[in-house]
Amino acid sequence: MKKYILKDIKKQLNKTWSPVDVVSFNNQVLRVAIFDGEYHWHSHQNEDEFFLIFSGSITIETENGQIILNKGEGTVIPKGLKHKPSANKPSLVLMVEPTSLKSKGD
Amino acid sequence: MKKYILKDIKKQLNKTWSPVDVVSFNNQVLRVAIFDGEYHWHSHQNEDEFFLIFSGSITIETENGQIILNKGEGTVIPKGLKHKPSANKPSLVLMVEPTSLKSKGD
Repeated sequence: MKKYILKDIKKQLNKTWSPVDVVSFNNQVLRVAIFDGEYHWHSHQNEDEFFLIFSGSITIETENGQIILNKGEGTVIPKGLKHKPSANKPSLVLMVEPTSLKSKGD
Repeated sequence: MKKYILKDIKKQLNKTWSPVDVVSFNNQVLRVAIFDGEYHWHSHQNEDEFFLIFSGSITIETENGQIILNKGEGTVIPKGLKHKPSANKPSLVLMVEPTSLKSKGD
């Protein structure tokens, strides 16, 4: 049995907007990425996307308004909803998605 | 769109070993519980169980050995594996499981 250690994974990340796979379960995968700056508008046709902020703070703009997420906060972006994440500083973000989802979005 | 705030959820929890549902996505659910003391040996026949420690520290004994998880650490207990969680102090634990799984285990 293995455990994952988020602070160690954080040290290994050196590129923004580049999720790495941490662990899989029930056809889902925990991905971790550094968000910093602006990402592009995109959506996922068939997959809800779960977010949890481990450190820092991010904003997710959507067609339905924007949401600001700080450390220890999260949300779910439902499938099909266009969204645009951004961050004013490097922020570590946990995502849980189906393994079928390409980590870079549409 | 709603966000969840783990520190607020923590304040609402007053009973140990009693997971509350936070948010659902892709037929999975994020559950949060306070672990304190000893839970019983159990297994989940068809569901992997994802763990992440938000605060505190827990031990999970399994048929294959034990694992100690501190804040910011986690693991996945694969389906079918008997396991027994315990904690020496109140610890806030995030779990992601299929919505089909009853939160109290077998």
